[in-house]
Amino acid sequence: MNNKISPTSSFLNPDRYFSPDISIRSIARDLYAGTKDLPIVSPHGHTDPRWFAENLPFTDPAHLLITPDHYVFRMLYSQGVGLEKLGIPRLDGGSVEEDPRQIWQLFSQYYYLFAGTPVGAWFDHVFAEVFGMSENLTPENSESFYNTIDTALRTPDFLPRNIVDRFKIEVISTTDDATHTLAHHQVIQDSGWGGKVIPTFRPDGVSNIIHPDWRTNINALGELVGTELTTYSAFINALQIRREFFKNMGATSTDHGVATPLTMELSALEAETIYSKALNNSITAEDTIRFSGHMLMEMARMSIEDGLVMQIHPGSFRNHNEYVFKHFGGDKGADIPIQTEYTRNLHALLNRYGNDQRLKLIVFTLDETNYARELAPLAGHYPALKLGPAWWFNDSIEGMTRFRELTSETASIYNTVGFNDDTRALLSIPARHDLSRRVDANYLAGLVATHRIELGTAREMSQALAYDLVKSAYNL
Amino acid sequence: MNNKISPTSSFLNPDRYFSPDISIRSIARDLYAGTKDLPIVSPHGHTDPRWFAENLPFTDPAHLLITPDHYVFRMLYSQGVGLEKLGIPRLDGGSVEEDPRQIWQLFSQYYYLFAGTPVGAWFDHVFAEVFGMSENLTPENSESFYNTIDTALRTPDFLPRNIVDRFKIEVISTTDDATHTLAHHQVIQDSGWGGKVIPTFRPDGVSNIIHPDWRTNINALGELVGTELTTYSAFINALQIRREFFKNMGATSTDHGVATPLTMELSALEAETIYSKALNNSITAEDTIRFSGHMLMEMARMSIEDGLVMQIHPGSFRNHNEYVFKHFGGDKGADIPIQTEYTRNLHALLNRYGNDQRLKLIVFTLDETNYARELAPLAGHYPALKLGPAWWFNDSIEGMTRFRELTSETASIYNTVGFNDDTRALLSIPARHDLSRRVDANYLAGLVATHRIELGTAREMSQALAYDLVKSAYNL
Amino acid sequence: MNNKISPTSSFLNPDRYFSPDISIRSIARDLYAGTKDLPIVSPHGHTDPRWFAENLPFTDPAHLLITPDHYVFRMLYSQGVGLEKLGIPRLDGGSVEEDPRQIWQLFSQYYYLFAGTPVGAWFDHVFAEVFGMSENLTPENSESFYNTIDTALRTPDFLPRNIVDRFKIEVISTTDDATHTLAHHQVIQDSGWGGKVIPTFRPDGVSNIIHPDWRTNINALGELVGTELTTYSAFINALQIRREFFKNMGATSTDHGVATPLTMELSALEAETIYSKALNNSITAEDTIRFSGHMLMEMARMSIEDGLVMQIHPGSFRNHNEYVFKHFGGDKGADIPIQTEYTRNLHALLNRYGNDQRLKLIVFTLDETNYARELAPLAGHYPALKLGPAWWFNDSIEGMTRFRELTSETASIYNTVGFNDDTRALLSIPARHDLSRRVDANYLAGLVATHRIELGTAREMSQALAYDLVKSAYNL
Repeated sequence: MNNKISPTSSFLNPDRYFSPDISIRSIARDLYAGTKDLPIVSPHGHTDPRWFAENLPFTDPAHLLITPDHYVFRMLYSQGVGLEKLGIPRLDGGSVEEDPRQIWQLFSQYYYLFAGTPVGAWFDHVFAEVFGMSENLTPENSESFYNTIDTALRTPDFLPRNIVDRFKIEVISTTDDATHTLAHHQVIQDSGWGGKVIPTFRPDGVSNIIHPDWRTNINALGELVGTELTTYSAFINALQIRREFFKNMGATSTDHGVATPLTMELSALEAETIYSKALNNSITAEDTIRFSGHMLMEMARMSIEDGLVMQIHPGSFRNHNEYVFKHFGGDKGADIPIQTEYTRNLHALLNRYGNDQRLKLIVFTLDETNYARELAPLAGHYPALKLGPAWWFNDSIEGMTRFRELTSETASIYNTVGFNDDTRALLSIPARHDLSRRVDANYLAGLVATHRIELGTAREMSQALAYDLVKSAYNL
Repeated sequence: MNNKISPTSSFLNPDRYFSPDISIRSIARDLYAGTKDLPIVSPHGHTDPRWFAENLPFTDPAHLLITPDHYVFRMLYSQGVGLEKLGIPRLDGGSVEEDPRQIWQLFSQYYYLFAGTPVGAWFDHVFAEVFGMSENLTPENSESFYNTIDTALRTPDFLPRNIVDRFKIEVISTTDDATHTLAHHQVIQDSGWGGKVIPTFRPDGVSNIIHPDWRTNINALGELVGTELTTYSAFINALQIRREFFKNMGATSTDHGVATPLTMELSALEAETIYSKALNNSITAEDTIRFSGHMLMEMARMSIEDGLVMQIHPGSFRNHNEYVFKHFGGDKGADIPIQTEYTRNLHALLNRYGNDQRLKLIVFTLDETNYARELAPLAGHYPALKLGPAWWFNDSIEGMTRFRELTSETASIYNTVGFNDDTRALLSIPARHDLSRRVDANYLAGLVATHRIELGTAREMSQALAYDLVKSAYNL
Repeated sequence: MNNKISPTSSFLNPDRYFSPDISIRSIARDLYAGTKDLPIVSPHGHTDPRWFAENLPFTDPAHLLITPDHYVFRMLYSQGVGLEKLGIPRLDGGSVEEDPRQIWQLFSQYYYLFAGTPVGAWFDHVFAEVFGMSENLTPENSESFYNTIDTALRTPDFLPRNIVDRFKIEVISTTDDATHTLAHHQVIQDSGWGGKVIPTFRPDGVSNIIHPDWRTNINALGELVGTELTTYSAFINALQIRREFFKNMGATSTDHGVATPLTMELSALEAETIYSKALNNSITAEDTIRFSGHMLMEMARMSIEDGLVMQIHPGSFRNHNEYVFKHFGGDKGADIPIQTEYTRNLHALLNRYGNDQRLKLIVFTLDETNYARELAPLAGHYPALKLGPAWWFNDSIEGMTRFRELTSETASIYNTVGFNDDTRALLSIPARHDLSRRVDANYLAGLVATHRIELGTAREMSQALAYDLVKSAYNL
């Protein structure tokens, strides 16, 4: 069990994702050699802090690798495999498959769907590099894979903290509700373990006034700060208190999931009025949109005050499949991107705060049409704005390549922020960073081979993309 | 006269459309060798069933290859060649060029415009593979080309049924109005000929209440089912009867050309009201849009009942050039794509029917921004949804390559449906399928050469894209 | 000092921008060899005619190469470098850096940002080909670079007219307000110098009724034509007079910068009414949009009458950064693209005038999603419409390549118009044309290497893209 590339691996080629053109490939090898062993910095993701607080073994391969990961089961669902058969819990407590061996076997039958996809690439990496397999998963070897993984999970090497250490994860951020106590983070900090697991402040549950649990969340937020949040100003004050708490717990950033990146500053009166209407359940759709735009302004203002880096993740139509949402809940592979606009939507925020270097605003998109048209020109002008990496469905070999090709010429790589793994799949973290480093090495090698940059320059850029930029962008 | 690739052809290189990188090219050759001789399955196109019913010789090269094909004459028109000079009939019966040799000569003078375009690639294939030419068409050899083709057309080899047989077309679908009697299909079925030519149910003429001939079409539909269609329910009933008729005549699919893919379910009352207003010529623009969205819902419901595969082709601004439309009619190269949205527009239909595996919904787009952003995520989740191939202007070497690069990582190729030739140019059918098989071979070879998939996997995927997926997707 | 590629240049490789694949590269070399020495035709740009009229030496490297060029300083600004430090004049006359050596030194410290960007490519070309440098600019050699350039600028070789001659610029168009006297152009014409510097009629300042200086411009226009422009018809008449004057001064084209390419024909009454409201400062936002759409119709009508080629440049959100606009003015790197639509917006104009071959309409876009979806299909149909080259942020290696890949298959290269350098940076003109010729050579070489076109065809296309098309499209 080690995390080096096994040269005997027939299915995980050491030159994978590099152009077959030897002049590109040889440069890509050179660049990748300089980054492959760098520590992992993971500034944005969805691992569960409880894992690292409790440090208990994972139960079994299926419930580690399949049932929590909507990247995986959505694909089987698209081919007619019921979520129940994959062990996805029903909200009504109805029966679902519980035998992890059955789930694993079913997964193996459909594993061919992932050929040429990023999920397939990550799994192959995990199988080879983490569990020492030397062939592809098939229905035939599925049981053997299961047994190998299951046995490994019972060893100390696979306790969560040991995984973090072994993967050389220098720092990993979780994503946490504004109302979270961060009790797990406290346990981790008190444990004496050297691993650095820090929270990210994600206030969507209280800043989005049409969130289904908004009222409950507001109540919880009020309890945490010891005040009933009956006014907008009390609400804003509570957010500031919680940001301070998160910061004291190690957070360096906030994150905001919004339908659109609209930003607009409301008058104090209008903000108060909408907040009151929300408390009274009488908001309109227009109120919701305006309040969301206003909250982004408020968050930018607070970021300038407290120094937390601000991330915006817009443009996902959440829970598009009402049947799946009703029976299985959110984050079940049914979040679908929508067209997004940045030039006009970010205008208010960038005009108010975008020239202020105390603000670091990192923007993501699911709509690649914005890369060259809006985001690169904006990031190539405003001092506060940086571009987050290719996100979600675009976090792939082709998607990352498009991101570089469409943004670098206008924004330069130095207005981007390195890589986010954005994952809840702990074991795939090295796979994702490795893939990213390879794709960037290949992209830069192409620039060298076409005589756009020199090799020495490419080495500096490669190091920046793999390590330096993320550290500075997220204040890590 | 044969349909093998002639190795002596200097202008139709056996390695055409493959990367010049030898490691990709050698794999592409391998993959293409496995698909090039597979039968052609053509589930969506616009050939004329009369050809196969009457089985008469085509009249001459110009009226076979140029005047019916808006892909061709639009390009000459863009360079100032009047449609009259190309023999396109005027609606007012005004005089147009009638000498096919003059038309052919003019075409040859402008043939250089097609260099590097799919139309050029298809023509070169037809010239070389179907007519045995060994050089490019030029104004100088134009007459010789004409004579060779003209002579060939008078031989039995070039009777329509023999063409189908020689091209190894296993099945070909035509596209037929809901009010069509399918008399030609009946003749074909009764003829004893082994060729399989099946209809597709395309009810746009009756489901689109602003179709210029809507009232006429409704009357014709009523006559066919023996009832006056004075109510919405009578109209719906008539559609069901016609679908059943088409199905009995061999149809396995329906097709729907709509301005936008908006879907929405109207109340029975509203549907009835709009239908009545349409009969009374008093509809609004809003009525038209709502009714179109409702008809897609109805068609999906019927597809679940009768098992016909449902296709949606949205996003074309038909007859953009009013001068051309007024003087020459529709389908004259003046249909221009518009921006299209799927995530919100398909929401109603997918929520109502998208989890039902009895539905097969195949969606096309002319707006490539939807590939990665909306369509691949939707197809990678909903069991009912599959992605149609790169359509129309995107049915090209670069366009097909973009389709694969932008959809495969998220949706997998297994949520796509193989190739459609979508043509009214009978002789180009093998050219189009051959081009598609080559482009897919080259795409998959790139995945192998970059170590994303193994060669054995690529061979399976190549076979799926060329033959298996289309057969299963269209129930053929 | 010559303008040949120096083979000893280590940082300006003679094969730059060509694919490393030898079969593509060798063809690209062949094609490029055929175009590299062709004269430069520059039909659209922003050089200052005063330079060529006065023919005085440029003052110093910083005020020639940095402070006038928003492509350059925007990038440094994005990384926190104040515009004052770069010597950009403040509108309030506040103090800014005036020492060109300090500005140059600061520039050199941030020059690494331009690695892999078009600005970097242009600078490297200027450094090597115009000033004979043989290494990259760094903070260490910055002073030496400055001295070399500064010395050169004091030699006769670097007088503006000599630069034009030395660069083999056959013709260069400037961009000039409708109210400009063209006095500099008159001086040039009277000078006996053989260089051809012609104006372009750009009436935005008078046709855009919300232009901040509109009233002043209208007054100036009235004075020039000797009438007070109190009515719409007087205004239109004045425009016709000015077009005639520009044409007599050598202009062959007009240019129109608009927020959107909306075209619509207003009634004479409405046009008159809006014009009157504009004079009375009582226009609405809707008036502005409608009047803009109407003015494009008027300009097309006049183009048919007087034969001036019409260019439309839509889709830029000008002066997005209000702080920068207020303190430094326009054209400061804060113009950000917005989504643009052509199919519906150009409908009125193309229907009225698009079938008329007397009109040449050249359309540009900053929104690449329109290339394949709207612009190529429109240009591949309407006789009057041609596609302008990749513009502004897309005027880059990747951007030009995307333009070719996304438009050529549908529109053919013969409905495009060659290259525009669009620059106010005189010394970069050969760099930009050279880059364009290389990118096109590489694109065409790819078509040859994949057997889509033959080498002879590629040579013709290469010559067309570098020289023939621009001459015919702009009537030069």
